Amino acid sequence: MNTVKIVIAGPRGRMGSEAVKLIEETEGYELVAVLDHKNGGGKLSDFDGFNGVSAPVFTEISGCLQEVKPDVLIDLTTPEVGMHHTKTALEYGVRPVVGTTGFSQENLRELESICHDKGIGAIIAPNFALGAVLMMKFSQMAGKFFDDVEIIELHHDQKLDAPSGTAVKTAEMIAEVREGKKQGHPDEKETIAGARGAEFDGMHIHSVRLPGLIAHQQVMFGASGQTLTIRHDSYNRASFMSGVKLAVDTVLKIDTLVYGLENIID
Amino acid sequence: MNTVKIVIAGPRGRMGSEAVKLIEETEGYELVAVLDHKNGGGKLSDFDGFNGVSAPVFTEISGCLQEVKPDVLIDLTTPEVGMHHTKTALEYGVRPVVGTTGFSQENLRELESICHDKGIGAIIAPNFALGAVLMMKFSQMAGKFFDDVEIIELHHDQKLDAPSGTAVKTAEMIAEVREGKKQGHPDEKETIAGARGAEFDGMHIHSVRLPGLIAHQQVMFGASGQTLTIRHDSYNRASFMSGVKLAVDTVLKIDTLVYGLENIID
Amino acid sequence: MNTVKIVIAGPRGRMGSEAVKLIEETEGYELVAVLDHKNGGGKLSDFDGFNGVSAPVFTEISGCLQEVKPDVLIDLTTPEVGMHHTKTALEYGVRPVVGTTGFSQENLRELESICHDKGIGAIIAPNFALGAVLMMKFSQMAGKFFDDVEIIELHHDQKLDAPSGTAVKTAEMIAEVREGKKQGHPDEKETIAGARGAEFDGMHIHSVRLPGLIAHQQVMFGASGQTLTIRHDSYNRASFMSGVKLAVDTVLKIDTLVYGLENIID
Amino acid sequence: MNTVKIVIAGPRGRMGSEAVKLIEETEGYELVAVLDHKNGGGKLSDFDGFNGVSAPVFTEISGCLQEVKPDVLIDLTTPEVGMHHTKTALEYGVRPVVGTTGFSQENLRELESICHDKGIGAIIAPNFALGAVLMMKFSQMAGKFFDDVEIIELHHDQKLDAPSGTAVKTAEMIAEVREGKKQGHPDEKETIAGARGAEFDGMHIHSVRLPGLIAHQQVMFGASGQTLTIRHDSYNRASFMSGVKLAVDTVLKIDTLVYGLENIID
Repeated sequence: MNTVKIVIAGPRGRMGSEAVKLIEETEGYELVAVLDHKNGGGKLSDFDGFNGVSAPVFTEISGCLQEVKPDVLIDLTTPEVGMHHTKTALEYGVRPVVGTTGFSQENLRELESICHDKGIGAIIAPNFALGAVLMMKFSQMAGKFFDDVEIIELHHDQKLDAPSGTAVKTAEMIAEVREGKKQGHPDEKETIAGARGAEFDGMHIHSVRLPGLIAHQQVMFGASGQTLTIRHDSYNRASFMSGVKLAVDTVLKIDTLVYGLENIID
Repeated sequence: MNTVKIVIAGPRGRMGSEAVKLIEETEGYELVAVLDHKNGGGKLSDFDGFNGVSAPVFTEISGCLQEVKPDVLIDLTTPEVGMHHTKTALEYGVRPVVGTTGFSQENLRELESICHDKGIGAIIAPNFALGAVLMMKFSQMAGKFFDDVEIIELHHDQKLDAPSGTAVKTAEMIAEVREGKKQGHPDEKETIAGARGAEFDGMHIHSVRLPGLIAHQQVMFGASGQTLTIRHDSYNRASFMSGVKLAVDTVLKIDTLVYGLENIID
Repeated sequence: MNTVKIVIAGPRGRMGSEAVKLIEETEGYELVAVLDHKNGGGKLSDFDGFNGVSAPVFTEISGCLQEVKPDVLIDLTTPEVGMHHTKTALEYGVRPVVGTTGFSQENLRELESICHDKGIGAIIAPNFALGAVLMMKFSQMAGKFFDDVEIIELHHDQKLDAPSGTAVKTAEMIAEVREGKKQGHPDEKETIAGARGAEFDGMHIHSVRLPGLIAHQQVMFGASGQTLTIRHDSYNRASFMSGVKLAVDTVLKIDTLVYGLENIID
Repeated sequence: MNTVKIVIAGPRGRMGSEAVKLIEETEGYELVAVLDHKNGGGKLSDFDGFNGVSAPVFTEISGCLQEVKPDVLIDLTTPEVGMHHTKTALEYGVRPVVGTTGFSQENLRELESICHDKGIGAIIAPNFALGAVLMMKFSQMAGKFFDDVEIIELHHDQKLDAPSGTAVKTAEMIAEVREGKKQGHPDEKETIAGARGAEFDGMHIHSVRLPGLIAHQQVMFGASGQTLTIRHDSYNRASFMSGVKLAVDTVLKIDTLVYGLENIID
């Protein structure tokens, strides 16, 4: 197999630095350049924490792609910059793997059309945590067969919002397939308000917050005589990297736009 | 060791029939009689489900205790009947193990005084599920060292009230020892009401209800870099019997009134 | 929707009696007859535990099907009887749902061919526990993306064999899709033999046996920074019934032979 | 409350640096000096990772204690150095909290005697992870009431030995109190060797190794109709610090030698 030549946009952010590490550690991958909006001209090793990473730093994407001719662009920047990068990459025949959230439906349609014209693939993934993506997909599949489900999400106590975005997204995905059902006993009552958690389309979501915890979610399905539980534990940012790797390996083989890792898992 | 001669009051109720089974299966225990408020004169084997259990059935406690001279009375009746049975047993020098809830403080003081006069022990236990009692005791012990705790209780969806009595009792026991603390981030907010569960003295309690589940509770403590979890799963009524056995074995060795199994666990 | 007319073969076995209960409780289902190898002529309500179930009892399948003209035959007998029943049902245009294990490849090919000729469906399911089937299917799907997996199965201490059949079947299904990998550290060593469990194609299986437990299995996948866990808890035989219902509803819509519930879950 | 003046020996090790952080973050604690075997004369802030920590660095304990007159010495060095430090601290009336393992019975007797003579306390703790210590203590307590127990310990796949030291220590502590019992069915058999795990005094220990995992242990007790589970999850080294803090607060109030955190938990 030929080496996959990769450019990273946003290498010094938290996900970016993990992506640099992933490429350095993966046989068959080569980091041929990075894009940094303001520090062009030197090498990535000029910055703290990137000892020995000799990839050159560019500030402007067109020049970068012309010079290093990569196979894949991994973009971990902002929605605005990301859209510009993604379009430019496709124009140069470079396949984008984009970890930016916030693309509009219009953006996606435009990118889909460019992919089609160029005959190459692109992957846009709001969530690269492969385990979390599988948890959501399996939960949706199970939701077709089990009407009763509760979601328990557990996070560190510095998290401000409850329930978590992943919990709500999971509930939305299940709601798409299950017959709406108000769960629990029709006559149940809370003797202390909130005991039964947040209600979303008849499902209940419970948010646990404790110091020590990191990011965990458990989806429980129940039916007569049995329960089925799907749980994801995320311990640190490295958990995103298995999804990035899957996206890089997949984008090389497809010729359309894919939105969401769940759609490259069959 | 001598055989322990036992009388059961209320042998045909759900706990009573399990207690009969326990005694029949335990080496060193002998069921010498049962008390049933209306079916005296025959044998327990006259009733469905008690094949081969030849213990005689009495309707009145004094005559029963005089005739069979048991070591222990296991009472699984109602508070009113239970109080009468317990006093009578103590008067005849028979040690009571009582699974009835609802005794008043005044009742308990009276029984304590009789135990003292007679120099024999008695055990009154609102909850014989030894695992649940240990879960509560350990939770209280851990509450001295961990300020942050959340309780998740999970039950079948026919349960009407939330949170469960055991969850509230656990929270009360922890509240006795921990420094009051309002948990979670001071600025946390629920985007769907109820997500953070019921609040009890700064702790949060979450009630999960699903078909298939039976009776489960998980107490989670968190601190920097770690969590400690204590969980009890109760699958059926037989779970009460290890507590009954512990109470019978203990009541023979003590000479005071003990209220609650947690107080015979050191 | 029309009522689904159902015949059960083997109604007095442990699964059969649950199936009778399922049909009685499900709106849109009607139990029109049962097949019992030796007690024909009366009603099912003649037997203990079937109060009010007025379905007639037949000993011979052809006469039964001709007389009651069911839509579906649920067969919960033995492999030999089951094969005869299944063929006969198909010949009469009745769709079979078969919970018997032990059909040979030859049997299956023969049934497939009859289904094709008749243009009607049949479902043969060695395991009707829908949650367990989903656990295995999800584990296989996850095995494509996670190379590292361990299986923990937990059962009551009366179980003789370890690991359980379900655990081995799960490992086999994962082995079909994952790249073979010997897990754990290459230099790991057991200071007490057996600590690392049973090895199956590089995966490890651990068998826990405790009184109180019923039938539980947890499949854990690990990757850098995350774990994904899929767990099934089976509390009693009623857990099989959601799979029977799914099979009945599905068999009415298909026109081929399906072997294994996992193949009617997409 | 007066400020507690603390000296740390071994501030640049992995536990030492966490201890420095603990003291800096805890109101009422003051880091008045550190002991480093070779870098005396400057300030701790001279070293990477200790920005703003102005405590002076000493190489020799006697001079240090005479000059800064601390209340407590936290020693996180080696057994040899630790013994010398601990004795010297006691002689100067400074209370030691020692996280070094490997002290001999003779060492402990000698230190006990010095504590007695001086009338001040000392705490030596092989394990400062308070959650793990509680897990072991609770397991021992539960072991008095439940004869059946299995231990599942789960670690990252870089760990070489199985079972873990904590699992063996837990089993030893349970073995001290429970009646020896060979668990599982007397006729059980492994169809794949190792399925039933490592055997220790009739108990079974299972070692799971997966990338992503950190350090986790689950102790499960079973009895008729119920299970009781005690679980500790350690996510990072910060988990040791709640135990260090408990030891510092406790050593100020006691006047004897205590070995093991479990002995300051009642």
